[in-house]
Amino acid sequence: MNTQAHLPTRNGLDLVMMTKTVEALQNDPALAQFEFRASNQWVNGGENRSTIRGFFGAGTEDDSRTEDFTFTNGEPPVLLGNNEGANPVEFLLHALAGCVTTTTVLHAAARGINIRKLSTRLSGNINLEGLLALNDEAQVGYESIRIVMDIDADCSDEELDDLLNFAKDHSPVCNTVCRPVPVMLERA
Amino acid sequence: MNTQAHLPTRNGLDLVMMTKTVEALQNDPALAQFEFRASNQWVNGGENRSTIRGFFGAGTEDDSRTEDFTFTNGEPPVLLGNNEGANPVEFLLHALAGCVTTTTVLHAAARGINIRKLSTRLSGNINLEGLLALNDEAQVGYESIRIVMDIDADCSDEELDDLLNFAKDHSPVCNTVCRPVPVMLERA
Repeated sequence: MNTQAHLPTRNGLDLVMMTKTVEALQNDPALAQFEFRASNQWVNGGENRSTIRGFFGAGTEDDSRTEDFTFTNGEPPVLLGNNEGANPVEFLLHALAGCVTTTTVLHAAARGINIRKLSTRLSGNINLEGLLALNDEAQVGYESIRIVMDIDADCSDEELDDLLNFAKDHSPVCNTVCRPVPVMLERA
Repeated sequence: MNTQAHLPTRNGLDLVMMTKTVEALQNDPALAQFEFRASNQWVNGGENRSTIRGFFGAGTEDDSRTEDFTFTNGEPPVLLGNNEGANPVEFLLHALAGCVTTTTVLHAAARGINIRKLSTRLSGNINLEGLLALNDEAQVGYESIRIVMDIDADCSDEELDDLLNFAKDHSPVCNTVCRPVPVMLERA
Protein backbone atom coordinates (compact mmCIF):
# COMPACT_ATOMS: atom_id res chain seq x y z
CA MET A 1 0.00 0.00 0.00
CA ASN A 2 1.42 3.33 -1.09
CA THR A 3 0.76 5.92 1.61
CA GLN A 4 2.29 8.58 -0.68
CA ALA A 5 -0.87 8.36 -2.77
CA HIS A 6 -2.81 10.07 0.01
CA LEU A 7 -0.63 13.18 0.03
CA PRO A 8 -2.18 16.02 -1.98
CA THR A 9 0.60 16.65 -4.50
CA ARG A 10 0.52 17.52 -8.18
CA ASN A 11 3.58 17.52 -10.45
CA GLY A 12 5.63 16.82 -7.32
CA LEU A 13 4.43 19.98 -5.58
CA ASP A 14 2.74 19.90 -2.17
CA LEU A 15 -0.67 21.45 -2.86
CA VAL A 16 -1.34 22.28 0.80
CA MET A 17 1.98 24.15 1.10
CA MET A 18 1.31 25.85 -2.24
CA THR A 19 -2.10 27.11 -1.10
CA LYS A 20 -0.69 28.21 2.27
CA THR A 21 2.13 30.11 0.56
CA VAL A 22 -0.26 31.94 -1.75
CA GLU A 23 -2.59 32.80 1.14
CA ALA A 24 0.31 34.07 3.26
CA LEU A 25 1.47 36.35 0.42
CA GLN A 26 -2.05 37.62 -0.19
CA ASN A 27 -2.29 38.54 3.50
CA ASP A 28 1.15 40.15 3.64
CA PRO A 29 2.66 41.05 0.23
CA ALA A 30 5.94 42.09 1.93
CA LEU A 31 6.68 38.36 2.34
CA ALA A 32 7.08 38.13 -1.46
CA GLN A 33 10.22 40.29 -1.44
CA PHE A 34 13.26 38.06 -1.97
CA GLU A 35 16.97 38.86 -2.26
CA PHE A 36 19.13 36.20 -3.91
CA ARG A 37 22.95 36.26 -3.78
CA ALA A 38 26.12 34.75 -5.16
CA SER A 39 29.78 35.38 -4.47
CA ASN A 40 32.44 34.58 -7.04
CA GLN A 41 36.21 34.19 -6.94
CA TRP A 42 38.41 34.55 -10.02
CA VAL A 43 40.82 31.60 -10.35
CA ASN A 44 42.82 32.27 -13.56
CA GLY A 45 42.09 33.23 -17.17
CA GLY A 46 38.47 32.32 -17.93
CA GLU A 47 38.06 30.17 -14.81
CA ASN A 48 36.13 31.41 -11.77
CA ARG A 49 34.00 29.86 -9.08
CA SER A 50 30.72 30.90 -7.43
CA THR A 51 29.43 30.10 -3.98
CA ILE A 52 25.69 30.22 -3.35
CA ARG A 53 23.90 29.56 -0.08
CA GLY A 54 21.94 32.20 1.81
CA PHE A 55 19.07 34.35 0.64
CA PHE A 56 16.42 36.56 2.19
CA GLY A 57 12.77 35.79 1.59
CA ALA A 58 9.37 35.29 3.20
CA GLY A 59 10.40 37.92 5.74
CA THR A 60 13.47 36.09 7.03
CA GLU A 61 17.02 34.98 6.28
CA ASP A 62 16.84 31.42 4.94
CA ASP A 63 18.84 28.81 6.86
CA SER A 64 17.64 25.64 5.14
CA ARG A 65 20.91 24.91 3.35
CA THR A 66 23.50 23.08 5.37
CA GLU A 67 26.28 23.52 2.83
CA ASP A 68 27.30 25.83 0.00
CA PHE A 69 26.52 25.21 -3.64
CA THR A 70 29.64 25.83 -5.76
CA PHE A 71 29.81 26.15 -9.55
CA THR A 72 32.80 26.67 -11.84
CA ASN A 73 32.75 28.81 -14.96
CA GLY A 74 35.32 27.94 -17.61
CA GLU A 75 35.87 28.40 -21.34
CA PRO A 76 36.61 25.99 -24.17
CA PRO A 77 40.00 26.16 -25.96
CA VAL A 78 38.55 28.20 -28.85
CA LEU A 79 37.72 30.83 -26.20
CA LEU A 80 41.19 30.58 -24.61
CA GLY A 81 40.25 28.17 -21.81
CA ASN A 82 40.56 24.50 -20.87
CA ASN A 83 36.89 23.54 -20.36
CA GLU A 84 37.22 24.03 -16.61
CA GLY A 85 33.42 24.27 -16.57
CA ALA A 86 30.53 25.34 -18.80
CA ASN A 87 30.88 28.98 -19.72
CA PRO A 88 28.76 31.86 -18.37
CA VAL A 89 26.50 32.19 -21.43
CA GLU A 90 25.80 28.43 -21.22
CA PHE A 91 24.96 28.72 -17.50
CA LEU A 92 22.48 31.43 -18.46
CA LEU A 93 20.71 28.90 -20.73
CA HIS A 94 20.62 26.41 -17.83
CA ALA A 95 19.04 29.08 -15.60
CA LEU A 96 16.49 29.96 -18.27
CA ALA A 97 15.59 26.32 -18.97
CA GLY A 98 15.09 25.64 -15.28
CA CYS A 99 13.00 28.73 -14.63
CA VAL A 100 10.65 28.23 -17.58
CA THR A 101 10.27 24.56 -16.59
CA THR A 102 9.53 25.25 -12.92
CA THR A 103 7.13 28.08 -13.77
CA THR A 104 5.29 25.76 -16.17
CA VAL A 105 5.12 22.96 -13.58
CA LEU A 106 3.91 25.37 -10.86
CA HIS A 107 1.11 26.96 -12.87
CA ALA A 108 0.10 23.58 -14.29
CA ALA A 109 -0.34 22.38 -10.70
CA ALA A 110 -2.42 25.47 -9.88
CA ARG A 111 -4.64 24.76 -12.93
CA GLY A 112 -5.11 21.09 -12.10
CA ILE A 113 -2.98 19.93 -15.04
CA ASN A 114 -0.87 16.82 -14.44
CA ILE A 115 2.43 16.87 -16.38
CA ARG A 116 3.70 13.46 -17.43
CA LYS A 117 6.99 14.59 -18.95
CA LEU A 118 8.66 17.84 -19.86
CA SER A 119 12.01 18.54 -21.50
CA THR A 120 13.47 21.55 -23.29
CA ARG A 121 16.21 22.32 -25.80
CA LEU A 122 17.64 25.82 -25.85
CA SER A 123 19.85 27.58 -28.35
CA GLY A 124 21.04 31.14 -28.51
CA ASN A 125 23.18 33.13 -30.91
CA ILE A 126 25.98 35.47 -29.94
CA ASN A 127 28.26 37.53 -32.17
CA LEU A 128 31.58 37.56 -30.32
CA GLU A 129 32.66 40.72 -32.13
CA GLY A 130 30.59 42.38 -29.38
CA LEU A 131 32.54 40.89 -26.47
CA LEU A 132 35.85 41.59 -28.20
CA ALA A 133 34.90 45.18 -29.09
CA LEU A 134 35.73 44.54 -32.76
CA ASN A 135 32.48 45.93 -34.14
CA ASP A 136 30.38 48.67 -32.55
CA GLU A 137 27.33 47.48 -34.51
CA ALA A 138 27.48 43.96 -33.01
CA GLN A 139 24.99 43.20 -30.21
CA VAL A 140 27.00 42.24 -27.14
CA GLY A 141 24.64 39.74 -25.49
CA TYR A 142 22.51 36.98 -26.97
CA GLU A 143 20.75 38.12 -30.14
CA SER A 144 17.84 35.84 -29.31
CA ILE A 145 17.18 32.58 -27.46
CA ARG A 146 14.92 29.79 -28.69
CA ILE A 147 13.31 27.25 -26.36
CA VAL A 148 11.71 24.13 -27.81
CA MET A 149 9.64 22.34 -25.17
CA ASP A 150 8.53 18.72 -25.39
CA ILE A 151 5.64 18.43 -22.93
CA ASP A 152 3.09 15.71 -22.30
CA ALA A 153 0.17 16.49 -19.96
CA ASP A 154 -3.46 15.55 -19.35
CA CYS A 155 -4.98 18.57 -21.10
CA SER A 156 -5.79 19.80 -24.60
CA ASP A 157 -3.28 21.39 -26.96
CA GLU A 158 -5.09 24.71 -26.50
CA GLU A 159 -4.73 24.49 -22.71
CA LEU A 160 -1.04 23.61 -23.16
CA ASP A 161 -0.42 26.62 -25.40
CA ASP A 162 -2.18 28.87 -22.91
CA LEU A 163 -0.12 27.37 -20.05
CA LEU A 164 3.15 27.91 -21.94
CA ASN A 165 2.35 31.52 -22.80
CA PHE A 166 1.46 32.13 -19.16
CA ALA A 167 4.67 30.45 -17.96
CA LYS A 168 6.79 32.56 -20.31
CA ASP A 169 5.11 35.73 -19.03
CA HIS A 170 5.63 34.73 -15.37
CA SER A 171 9.12 33.14 -15.38
CA PRO A 172 11.56 35.37 -13.45
CA VAL A 173 14.65 34.37 -15.49
CA CYS A 174 12.77 34.66 -18.79
CA ASN A 175 11.64 38.16 -17.83
CA THR A 176 15.14 39.11 -16.67
CA VAL A 177 16.31 38.20 -20.20
CA CYS A 178 13.47 39.52 -22.36
CA ARG A 179 13.05 42.80 -20.43
CA PRO A 180 15.80 45.30 -19.54
CA VAL A 181 17.01 44.83 -15.94
CA PRO A 182 19.47 47.36 -14.50
CA VAL A 183 22.86 45.97 -13.44
CA MET A 184 25.03 48.10 -11.18
CA LEU A 185 28.76 47.36 -11.04
CA GLU A 186 30.85 49.10 -8.41
CA ARG A 187 34.23 48.59 -6.78
CA ALA A 188 34.35 47.42 -3.16
CA MET B 1 63.94 27.48 -13.04
CA ASN B 2 60.40 28.27 -14.05
CA THR B 3 59.97 27.67 -17.78
CA GLN B 4 56.38 28.94 -17.48
CA ALA B 5 57.80 32.42 -17.08
CA HIS B 6 58.80 32.42 -20.75
CA LEU B 7 55.27 31.84 -22.04
CA PRO B 8 53.60 35.08 -23.06
CA THR B 9 50.54 34.97 -20.82
CA ARG B 10 48.71 37.67 -18.91
CA ASN B 11 46.02 37.02 -16.30
CA GLY B 12 46.26 33.34 -17.28
CA LEU B 13 45.40 34.05 -20.92
CA ASP B 14 47.71 33.02 -23.79
CA LEU B 15 48.56 36.32 -25.45
CA VAL B 16 49.65 34.70 -28.73
CA MET B 17 46.34 32.79 -29.01
CA MET B 18 44.46 35.95 -28.04
CA THR B 19 46.14 37.97 -30.81
CA LYS B 20 45.62 35.19 -33.36
CA THR B 21 41.93 34.94 -32.44
CA VAL B 22 41.36 38.67 -32.85
CA GLU B 23 43.25 38.69 -36.19
CA ALA B 24 41.23 35.71 -37.47
CA LEU B 25 37.96 37.47 -36.60
CA GLN B 26 39.10 40.70 -38.20
CA ASN B 27 39.87 38.77 -41.41
CA ASP B 28 36.60 36.80 -41.35
CA PRO B 29 33.86 38.24 -39.10
CA ALA B 30 31.64 35.21 -39.81
CA LEU B 31 33.90 33.24 -37.43
CA ALA B 32 32.52 35.35 -34.54
CA GLN B 33 29.03 33.84 -34.88
CA PHE B 34 28.47 31.35 -32.04
CA GLU B 35 25.48 29.22 -31.10
CA PHE B 36 25.38 27.95 -27.52
CA ARG B 37 22.97 25.24 -26.35
CA ALA B 38 21.54 23.44 -23.36
CA SER B 39 19.03 20.64 -23.00
CA ASN B 40 17.02 20.20 -19.82
CA GLN B 41 14.94 17.39 -18.34
CA TRP B 42 12.26 17.95 -15.71
CA VAL B 43 12.67 15.57 -12.77
CA ASN B 44 9.84 16.45 -10.33
CA GLY B 45 8.40 19.59 -8.74
CA GLY B 46 11.05 22.31 -8.83
CA GLU B 47 13.88 19.90 -9.74
CA ASN B 48 15.27 19.68 -13.27
CA ARG B 49 18.63 18.93 -14.83
CA SER B 50 20.53 20.48 -17.75
CA THR B 51 23.08 18.88 -20.03
CA ILE B 52 25.58 21.12 -21.81
CA ARG B 53 28.30 20.04 -24.23
CA GLY B 54 28.32 21.03 -27.91
CA PHE B 55 28.25 24.46 -29.47
CA PHE B 56 28.93 25.99 -32.85
CA GLY B 57 31.59 28.69 -33.18
CA ALA B 58 34.65 29.84 -35.12
CA GLY B 59 33.02 28.32 -38.20
CA THR B 60 32.78 24.79 -36.86
CA GLU B 61 31.03 22.45 -34.43
CA ASP B 62 33.16 22.30 -31.27
CA ASP B 63 34.37 18.84 -30.21
CA SER B 64 36.74 19.79 -27.42
CA ARG B 65 34.57 18.45 -24.60
CA THR B 66 34.90 14.76 -23.92
CA GLU B 67 31.97 14.61 -21.50
CA ASP B 68 28.75 16.45 -20.72
CA PHE B 69 28.43 19.15 -18.09
CA THR B 70 25.30 18.54 -15.99
CA PHE B 71 23.68 20.97 -13.55
CA THR B 72 20.66 20.53 -11.30
CA ASN B 73 18.15 23.26 -10.56
CA GLY B 74 16.21 22.92 -7.32
CA GLU B 75 14.27 25.07 -4.89
CA PRO B 76 14.51 25.63 -1.13
CA PRO B 77 11.65 24.47 1.14
CA VAL B 78 10.16 27.99 1.31
CA LEU B 79 9.74 27.70 -2.47
CA LEU B 80 8.27 24.18 -2.23
CA GLY B 81 11.51 22.25 -2.91
CA ASN B 82 14.18 20.29 -1.08
CA ASN B 83 17.34 22.20 -2.06
CA GLU B 84 18.06 19.69 -4.83
CA GLY B 85 20.32 22.40 -6.31
CA ALA B 86 20.64 26.16 -6.45
CA ASN B 87 17.57 27.68 -8.05
CA PRO B 88 17.38 29.20 -11.54
CA VAL B 89 17.55 32.84 -10.44
CA GLU B 90 20.67 32.01 -8.40
CA PHE B 91 22.27 30.27 -11.41
CA LEU B 92 21.63 33.48 -13.35
CA LEU B 93 23.73 35.37 -10.77
CA HIS B 94 26.51 32.77 -11.18
CA ALA B 95 26.42 33.28 -14.97
CA LEU B 96 26.50 37.06 -14.57
CA ALA B 97 29.37 36.98 -12.05
CA GLY B 98 31.42 34.73 -14.31
CA CYS B 99 30.82 36.74 -17.44
CA VAL B 100 31.65 40.13 -15.92
CA THR B 101 34.78 38.59 -14.35
CA THR B 102 36.03 36.94 -17.55
CA THR B 103 35.28 40.06 -19.61
CA THR B 104 37.25 42.16 -17.11
CA VAL B 105 40.18 39.71 -17.13
CA LEU B 106 40.20 39.55 -20.95
CA HIS B 107 40.17 43.30 -21.56
CA ALA B 108 42.68 43.84 -18.75
CA ALA B 109 45.01 41.46 -20.59
CA ALA B 110 44.45 43.36 -23.85
CA ARG B 111 45.31 46.63 -22.06
CA GLY B 112 48.46 45.25 -20.43
CA ILE B 113 46.92 45.31 -16.94
CA ASN B 114 47.93 42.45 -14.62
CA ILE B 115 45.16 41.46 -12.21
CA ARG B 116 46.36 40.16 -8.87
CA LYS B 117 42.99 39.22 -7.43
CA LEU B 118 39.34 39.67 -8.32
CA SER B 119 36.18 38.63 -6.53
CA THR B 120 32.57 39.72 -6.73
CA ARG B 121 29.45 39.68 -4.57
CA LEU B 122 26.09 39.84 -6.32
CA SER B 123 22.61 40.46 -5.01
CA GLY B 124 19.33 40.88 -6.78
CA ASN B 125 15.77 41.58 -5.69
CA ILE B 126 12.70 39.74 -6.91
CA ASN B 127 9.07 40.24 -5.94
CA LEU B 128 7.58 36.76 -6.09
CA GLU B 129 4.08 38.19 -6.54
CA GLY B 130 5.15 38.37 -10.19
CA LEU B 131 5.97 34.66 -10.56
CA LEU B 132 2.80 33.70 -8.71
CA ALA B 133 0.59 36.08 -10.72
CA LEU B 134 -0.73 37.66 -7.53
CA ASN B 135 -0.12 41.27 -8.59
CA ASP B 136 -0.15 42.56 -12.16
CA GLU B 137 1.95 45.55 -11.09
CA ALA B 138 4.81 43.38 -9.80
CA GLN B 139 7.86 43.06 -12.06
CA VAL B 140 8.30 39.37 -12.84
CA GLY B 141 12.10 39.16 -13.19
CA TYR B 142 14.85 40.71 -11.11
CA GLU B 143 14.09 44.33 -10.27
CA SER B 144 17.82 45.10 -10.36
CA ILE B 145 21.12 43.33 -9.73
CA ARG B 146 24.07 44.80 -7.86
CA ILE B 147 27.65 43.61 -8.37
CA VAL B 148 30.35 44.68 -5.91
CA MET B 149 33.80 43.85 -7.27
CA ASP B 150 36.95 43.62 -5.16
CA ILE B 151 39.81 43.94 -7.63
CA ASP B 152 43.55 44.44 -7.18
CA ALA B 153 45.63 45.20 -10.29
CA ASP B 154 48.81 47.04 -11.33
CA CYS B 155 47.07 50.18 -12.59
CA SER B 156 45.54 53.39 -11.26
CA ASP B 157 42.04 53.67 -9.83
CA GLU B 158 41.04 55.69 -12.90
CA GLU B 159 42.25 52.92 -15.22
CA LEU B 160 40.36 50.37 -13.10
CA ASP B 161 37.13 52.35 -13.28
CA ASP B 162 37.52 52.67 -17.05
CA LEU B 163 38.23 48.92 -17.34
CA LEU B 164 35.14 48.05 -15.27
CA ASN B 165 32.85 50.30 -17.30
CA PHE B 166 34.22 48.76 -20.48
CA ALA B 167 33.78 45.22 -19.13
CA LYS B 168 30.16 45.94 -18.15
CA ASP B 169 29.45 47.28 -21.65
CA HIS B 170 31.05 44.23 -23.33
CA SER B 171 29.95 41.32 -21.11
CA PRO B 172 27.51 39.07 -23.02
CA VAL B 173 25.56 37.95 -19.94
CA CYS B 174 25.42 41.47 -18.50
CA ASN B 175 24.03 42.74 -21.81
CA THR B 176 21.55 39.86 -22.03
CA VAL B 177 20.26 41.05 -18.64
CA CYS B 178 20.40 44.83 -18.97
CA ARG B 179 19.02 44.91 -22.55
CA PRO B 180 15.87 43.22 -23.85
CA VAL B 181 16.65 39.91 -25.59
CA PRO B 182 13.81 38.09 -27.38
CA VAL B 183 12.98 34.60 -26.03
CA MET B 184 10.90 32.30 -28.24
CA LEU B 185 9.11 29.40 -26.55
CA GLU B 186 7.46 26.80 -28.77
CA ARG B 187 6.24 23.24 -28.41
CA ALA B 188 8.20 20.44 -30.09
